[in-house]
Amino acid sequence: MAAPAALLIRGGRVVNAEASQAADVLVEGGVVRALGRGLLPPGGAPAGLRVLDATGKLVLPGGIDTHTHMQFPFMGTRAVDDFLQGTQAALAGGTTMIMDFAIPPKGSSLLGAFETWRGWADPAVCCDYGLHVAVTWWSDQVKEEMKILTQDKGVNSFKMFMAYKDVYMVGDAELYAAFSRCKEIGAIAQVHAENGDLIAEGAKKMLALGITGPEGHELCRPEAVEAEATLRAITIASAVNCPLYVVHVMSRSAAKVIADARREGKVVYGEPIAASLGTDGTHYWNKDWHHAAHYVMGPPLRPDPSTPDYLMNLLANGDLTTTGTDNCTFNTCQKALGKDDFTKIPNGVNGVEDRMSVIWEKGVHSGKMDENRFVAVTSTNAAKIFNLYPRKGRIAVGSDADIVIWDPNATRTISAKTHHQAVNFNIFEGMVCHGVPLVTISRGKVVYEAGVFHVAPGDGKYIPRKPFAEYVYGRVKQRDQTCTPTLVEREPYQGDVVLLE
Amino acid sequence: MAAPAALLIRGGRVVNAEASQAADVLVEGGVVRALGRGLLPPGGAPAGLRVLDATGKLVLPGGIDTHTHMQFPFMGTRAVDDFLQGTQAALAGGTTMIMDFAIPPKGSSLLGAFETWRGWADPAVCCDYGLHVAVTWWSDQVKEEMKILTQDKGVNSFKMFMAYKDVYMVGDAELYAAFSRCKEIGAIAQVHAENGDLIAEGAKKMLALGITGPEGHELCRPEAVEAEATLRAITIASAVNCPLYVVHVMSRSAAKVIADARREGKVVYGEPIAASLGTDGTHYWNKDWHHAAHYVMGPPLRPDPSTPDYLMNLLANGDLTTTGTDNCTFNTCQKALGKDDFTKIPNGVNGVEDRMSVIWEKGVHSGKMDENRFVAVTSTNAAKIFNLYPRKGRIAVGSDADIVIWDPNATRTISAKTHHQAVNFNIFEGMVCHGVPLVTISRGKVVYEAGVFHVAPGDGKYIPRKPFAEYVYGRVKQRDQTCTPTLVEREPYQGDVVLLE
Amino acid sequence: MAAPAALLIRGGRVVNAEASQAADVLVEGGVVRALGRGLLPPGGAPAGLRVLDATGKLVLPGGIDTHTHMQFPFMGTRAVDDFLQGTQAALAGGTTMIMDFAIPPKGSSLLGAFETWRGWADPAVCCDYGLHVAVTWWSDQVKEEMKILTQDKGVNSFKMFMAYKDVYMVGDAELYAAFSRCKEIGAIAQVHAENGDLIAEGAKKMLALGITGPEGHELCRPEAVEAEATLRAITIASAVNCPLYVVHVMSRSAAKVIADARREGKVVYGEPIAASLGTDGTHYWNKDWHHAAHYVMGPPLRPDPSTPDYLMNLLANGDLTTTGTDNCTFNTCQKALGKDDFTKIPNGVNGVEDRMSVIWEKGVHSGKMDENRFVAVTSTNAAKIFNLYPRKGRIAVGSDADIVIWDPNATRTISAKTHHQAVNFNIFEGMVCHGVPLVTISRGKVVYEAGVFHVAPGDGKYIPRKPFAEYVYGRVKQRDQTCTPTLVEREPYQGDVVLLE
Amino acid sequence: MAAPAALLIRGGRVVNAEASQAADVLVEGGVVRALGRGLLPPGGAPAGLRVLDATGKLVLPGGIDTHTHMQFPFMGTRAVDDFLQGTQAALAGGTTMIMDFAIPPKGSSLLGAFETWRGWADPAVCCDYGLHVAVTWWSDQVKEEMKILTQDKGVNSFKMFMAYKDVYMVGDAELYAAFSRCKEIGAIAQVHAENGDLIAEGAKKMLALGITGPEGHELCRPEAVEAEATLRAITIASAVNCPLYVVHVMSRSAAKVIADARREGKVVYGEPIAASLGTDGTHYWNKDWHHAAHYVMGPPLRPDPSTPDYLMNLLANGDLTTTGTDNCTFNTCQKALGKDDFTKIPNGVNGVEDRMSVIWEKGVHSGKMDENRFVAVTSTNAAKIFNLYPRKGRIAVGSDADIVIWDPNATRTISAKTHHQAVNFNIFEGMVCHGVPLVTISRGKVVYEAGVFHVAPGDGKYIPRKPFAEYVYGRVKQRDQTCTPTLVEREPYQGDVVLLE
Repeated sequence: MAAPAALLIRGGRVVNAEASQAADVLVEGGVVRALGRGLLPPGGAPAGLRVLDATGKLVLPGGIDTHTHMQFPFMGTRAVDDFLQGTQAALAGGTTMIMDFAIPPKGSSLLGAFETWRGWADPAVCCDYGLHVAVTWWSDQVKEEMKILTQDKGVNSFKMFMAYKDVYMVGDAELYAAFSRCKEIGAIAQVHAENGDLIAEGAKKMLALGITGPEGHELCRPEAVEAEATLRAITIASAVNCPLYVVHVMSRSAAKVIADARREGKVVYGEPIAASLGTDGTHYWNKDWHHAAHYVMGPPLRPDPSTPDYLMNLLANGDLTTTGTDNCTFNTCQKALGKDDFTKIPNGVNGVEDRMSVIWEKGVHSGKMDENRFVAVTSTNAAKIFNLYPRKGRIAVGSDADIVIWDPNATRTISAKTHHQAVNFNIFEGMVCHGVPLVTISRGKVVYEAGVFHVAPGDGKYIPRKPFAEYVYGRVKQRDQTCTPTLVEREPYQGDVVLLE
Repeated sequence: MAAPAALLIRGGRVVNAEASQAADVLVEGGVVRALGRGLLPPGGAPAGLRVLDATGKLVLPGGIDTHTHMQFPFMGTRAVDDFLQGTQAALAGGTTMIMDFAIPPKGSSLLGAFETWRGWADPAVCCDYGLHVAVTWWSDQVKEEMKILTQDKGVNSFKMFMAYKDVYMVGDAELYAAFSRCKEIGAIAQVHAENGDLIAEGAKKMLALGITGPEGHELCRPEAVEAEATLRAITIASAVNCPLYVVHVMSRSAAKVIADARREGKVVYGEPIAASLGTDGTHYWNKDWHHAAHYVMGPPLRPDPSTPDYLMNLLANGDLTTTGTDNCTFNTCQKALGKDDFTKIPNGVNGVEDRMSVIWEKGVHSGKMDENRFVAVTSTNAAKIFNLYPRKGRIAVGSDADIVIWDPNATRTISAKTHHQAVNFNIFEGMVCHGVPLVTISRGKVVYEAGVFHVAPGDGKYIPRKPFAEYVYGRVKQRDQTCTPTLVEREPYQGDVVLLE
Repeated sequence: MAAPAALLIRGGRVVNAEASQAADVLVEGGVVRALGRGLLPPGGAPAGLRVLDATGKLVLPGGIDTHTHMQFPFMGTRAVDDFLQGTQAALAGGTTMIMDFAIPPKGSSLLGAFETWRGWADPAVCCDYGLHVAVTWWSDQVKEEMKILTQDKGVNSFKMFMAYKDVYMVGDAELYAAFSRCKEIGAIAQVHAENGDLIAEGAKKMLALGITGPEGHELCRPEAVEAEATLRAITIASAVNCPLYVVHVMSRSAAKVIADARREGKVVYGEPIAASLGTDGTHYWNKDWHHAAHYVMGPPLRPDPSTPDYLMNLLANGDLTTTGTDNCTFNTCQKALGKDDFTKIPNGVNGVEDRMSVIWEKGVHSGKMDENRFVAVTSTNAAKIFNLYPRKGRIAVGSDADIVIWDPNATRTISAKTHHQAVNFNIFEGMVCHGVPLVTISRGKVVYEAGVFHVAPGDGKYIPRKPFAEYVYGRVKQRDQTCTPTLVEREPYQGDVVLLE
Repeated sequence: MAAPAALLIRGGRVVNAEASQAADVLVEGGVVRALGRGLLPPGGAPAGLRVLDATGKLVLPGGIDTHTHMQFPFMGTRAVDDFLQGTQAALAGGTTMIMDFAIPPKGSSLLGAFETWRGWADPAVCCDYGLHVAVTWWSDQVKEEMKILTQDKGVNSFKMFMAYKDVYMVGDAELYAAFSRCKEIGAIAQVHAENGDLIAEGAKKMLALGITGPEGHELCRPEAVEAEATLRAITIASAVNCPLYVVHVMSRSAAKVIADARREGKVVYGEPIAASLGTDGTHYWNKDWHHAAHYVMGPPLRPDPSTPDYLMNLLANGDLTTTGTDNCTFNTCQKALGKDDFTKIPNGVNGVEDRMSVIWEKGVHSGKMDENRFVAVTSTNAAKIFNLYPRKGRIAVGSDADIVIWDPNATRTISAKTHHQAVNFNIFEGMVCHGVPLVTISRGKVVYEAGVFHVAPGDGKYIPRKPFAEYVYGRVKQRDQTCTPTLVEREPYQGDVVLLE
């Protein structure tokens, strides 16, 4: 894209994770050039400098959605939000970077998947993006490709599925191998934590009971299935001193497993998502099939209505760390593939557009977290974990000018009628949110303003990430040095050795 | 054996799990015939009635050791306490029934193993015994044999190993199948809960670090490995509504997993053992290899010295339920098989003789539990779970006269020099215990008294057990009826179904 | 009353806390004379022996309601269920003993209160009863009267209020003194655990906000207020090694405090009540003032709808021990004293009649507990704690014949229209309960059968209770002996002592 | 003091709480003027610019010790570290600001105490300092003085003692009043959380048992006494929506109470101290009276040796927030005031000099936390809570140049022989610490370098603090707006009101 004009964001309150300050922000060449009071020259703005008034507004780092699946080919169909429309929606919501997943079928090349996703995304994306890569099987080739991806392709995070049996699921031995490899190459291991064996058996049981509707989706994979897998993953990762990142934390019990592990010093991060923070699984019992089916995702939303509040408390308190969306959208007519069998309803919900507003409403407006923690959980922590910081996730001199001008007092009502996503419904329909993104700036360019996009497909860029992120690996490396077990010095045993008396 | 004479135990305090009472106990034909005050005829004892004075003493149900491995062929050698000497030692300690394990190699018949163990035990045992049977692999044959064992052979408990990879270990799918089968046939599932994959990897790592001594045994399989497997087993068992019994609970964290699951209503029982209640894993760091090796068992004792106290608190409070020993003894010269490699040290410790005294000392004398809870955890609960109650585990009219006259004020010092077991050391060496068994009566016969045995090999009997123990299956069956999920009645979906937009 | 005829209860399943058995029960002279199969003489029932057919039914110990306030003068009015109608209702529901509270005003004699309550109850009661006595202030007189009540009046339990500021509330120093005194005289300390200071302040705040309706009752005294006081009471009681009994456990968090303390070995018992097990505090937000006011009690029912389920799980698991009702009923027109100010709504709800059915339905029919645990929590545990066992709380030879013939399969619907209590509404209105009491027998006499009472005022008796109940004090006394701190032997300090340099 | 020369700290790694960066730091006029690479002019340092080489070193914000008691008159004597020597020692250890406590006797003016402490400190301090003020009694005067202190005197934190009965202790009603007042004026409430009543009774009991030595100090006030008070304080503070700061967290159980409360969203901060993070209470059982007495402080160190590790884990994880020392030192000859009675041993230990090194060793070198978290817990969080940020607690342009050049690889051994404090022993004696402060800079002046002080009494300054710290009050104020309870709209009650039927 053409080099954006210089921008001066005046009079706002710049909010970073560590503190806020009243400051103007000067943007040039796509990055922040200056930060401070009174940056407007006494004579007014020179030519080529656009001034944006942010008086009474917040100036936030653009959001990083850590978990999306744009145009994902899945369960016999393909997610309707593609890299173009999905990233536009992201920008409309104040998110300036997404992290998607390249997912090879079992037996296929990880590098191949990576290139496929790059091929889809590069010409289409309207905001910056990164790619996690999934390890869906294990072999020497996989092991080697993980290294190449880390060294040459800018990938420092690999996801393993403990669910989706026979499709993406890997067993414990493969987890151990993959975690060990991540540790060697300085990547962070990610897991979809659900016990896939139990889900498979549970699904059979529900269908045998004649339960074919969306409620069966939750009944066959209750919380305990998620919590068990979460503890298992943490235990295995801890055994190899590999940092772990648990994607889409959906339940109280799984979140508690993570929080308790952190108290014991485990290097583990939990990612709740807009869906688990903003709504719940009672919808699966809705009498209208359409309605219920719209909420089907894996792991499922939980019927315990206190779940979102609980997760938000942990997110506010630092027990959970980042937020994604698992945005993977299917229209009603796609969901209908499972009209007679819930196991065939394509899994996935929206979120990429509404994540920031939902978290502001449920987290900040409610008084659970302050604006700084909001920035931490919507961008900064993600940037630190995935080694993008301080380029992303912070407004500071030298950082990418990914910025949102945010009105904390305005409200908007979420609706499929007005959202910018492709999907024909919205799981947050009707939610009134304080906290509205007014202007979104991507690498220095105003890309969304007053409801209008100023962005072209491909304006976004792939952002490579280096391994051994300090934020994640600092403690890990130190432990390797100081926590190694030592042997007890002893006199050799001198007595008899008798096989069988 | 010859029919024992009638016995009258006079003047003692009869202690059952629910209450104690001052009462005489009249024994005839191997069972309790009367219970009450003043059972001695006014004219004195008639011929054929032996009177035992229990004034100032407690009269307890004989102990049931839920977990032994007499003469077990294991790790290239064989346990030195065989069914003869092992059961004698049991009697000397106040235990009148043991439950051993018939363990087939992978691929072998369960029935065959059962008969093998019967063949070893029947001619040798000095006290009654039962057999759990291990499920070490899975097939239709195994499934069928489980049914036969339950219906025809008096077995209502099956144990699955989650550890001992490539030897006895079964995977999660096999656990699911075995638990499901237990549920169908009314048996209780037992698990050795440790993550065998992690142990295998951990052992490799310790050896690679040059740690070949007994401390490596614990370092390669820390608490988390036990706690993880415990939660996994509970989650799987709960998914099929199968009652679960976790053998040898060795750590705080595993015990907490069980206690927490019970609070949530899970039907799960935890069995700490004499070793985990009476000593700890700091011994693995002992500078003397002999000493350290003596304590090697799996799962290991824990280096956290607060472990025994914690487990005893949970046992006192009802969070843990029964007590065994995992008695599986190897002499020092057998332990020496692993003198250069801890993974080759035969796993197992003593306990069958000292269990009752250790629990009295650490549990009752310490004030953690009362005498009634002592009876509950040393015999009654085991009898209920394994469907032997009220024949065993209680002193009541009609019950087997398995009785111990117990002196709560006397003390004895545990030592390998004086114990009756075959093994040449004792992990409780030097422990001074209040609570001494004075007289042990097995099915009405005085078999141990004043340090002398009056028993012959084969005097003990195999005690068959029926399935669907009410204590265990009462709630399970009720839940099958009232907790079944139900479907949501809905209008059929009428809209389009579109595979790919 | 006239000596009842002998009774033979035939063909039922006798359920005690430790086990069940198929047995006939022979009753003579008000006590159980025999228990076993085939007690009917071959020639049929002789004259004077009434035979009751219990085929297909359960034969249970009559319930013990540990917590009632019949005709209690409170908050400017008087509870409408008096000792006559209240105990009739108890019998109709299968409860054969109640424990009420004698409560002196601050500054008044405990003995006086005791005699007042005796004067009300003795001529009126239709079932047996005992009296707890409240300690509402502290002085040497109180201390002395506690001793007299324990030694001469059959009282072994004293209740202290941590709430009802300026009325019944005592401070921490008084709690310490009262607990210490209970310990000396062998009584159990009971507490109403709520922080009375915070309630008083909270009530002021709600009224200041204009919240005058029943919802204000809960808002001014949320769970945390109950949990805090519960921990405080446990801490103080533990400091003096005094056993503690927490009445009316109403919330998840307070129950968890108790359960956690028990895991640590504290001698503490928790008493949930019919109301907290059977309904919840969402009713306070009912739009109909009448409806909402009917549920007002202290501590309040909790708005978290998962509360009853949680408490029942803990009750089933042994974390909570007994069940009462806090039966203290006021008609709508009495509740209306607080029509403009929730602090003036007389506190109290019904339960004495329905407790057994509610617990059966929510506890046993749901599969959370078995019939034996049902007996434990409805009578046996109370009998043990308050030293009535085995006279009460058990069906055994020599025990009082307080028996209920219970149909576990029949159902009844609870309603104020059909209940036997005086109060004009029922907080369980419309609840369908499995588990119906068919015949109630009090000390050998059929007092309720087929919906008809056969009992006269004063047929019930005051049951004195001895101190130092073994079930409670066994561990306490042992700890006094074995857990006393010891000093470190040291050389005396020989150096200088300098006040100020 | 004379205006310090300009400084350029070259080549180090500047560590702030949010991130680290390789950067030079230019200091002028006592503040940081520039931060970045290559700040040394091409021609070399001009006159008046001193260049400090920090190559291979860390450049940290100077530590803030949140909790000291210099020259405190206490228990009949006076702490030997006064504001001069105490602050010198602070500087030697890398701490550039202390927060001390002005503590009026009951009945005395808070303002008076404040001025007294100012009078002691101002002429003596070698580093900057602030003052918390204690509320030891309650009256309208106290209430008014709290306002004056907040508005005019730079105090935004008030400490209440729940222990030291009859000396400093306040009751629950006073806590409620004081917390309410803090809320109104924008201060943070601090508590010494121990149940003073139980301590008083416990002390009597220990002395009665003949336990007069230092072990009695812990025995009379075990963990439960601290945990109970902690929960009580949190509950009361939460009732008035007042932020709470728990000073000197000494035990696992108290820390867990705080951590759990934070998970529920409570605005509460916990401050472990160097002593509780670096040593434990087993010393009280030392056979040498001198040794044991040296560790006496209140609340005591805990005999559970896992305590420091547990606290450090919570500190690393964000469950605990800041670190102080409770530095309040008495020489052995002062401790000897309690040679025959532990209650007379002056309470207090050292820490102000060693805090930074102890936390580095146990926290960073051990791999529990990274260097950024180290900065957060040693200075940044304190600065945020007490509203000093970003002036203190951060190295950024405009911040006070309170800086330490830290060698993470060097080690030093703590010893009373070499420390700079006045007291004649050191509770960390012999501890080898990685992490050594090489140069300490206070407001731009090198005040400690190569073991030599360059500072004069009074060089430090009193730092006033404004109320309503955003970090603390942001959420509090938001909750006041959005979490207010609302009433239920209802029809008025129209029925009868009957006092007594």
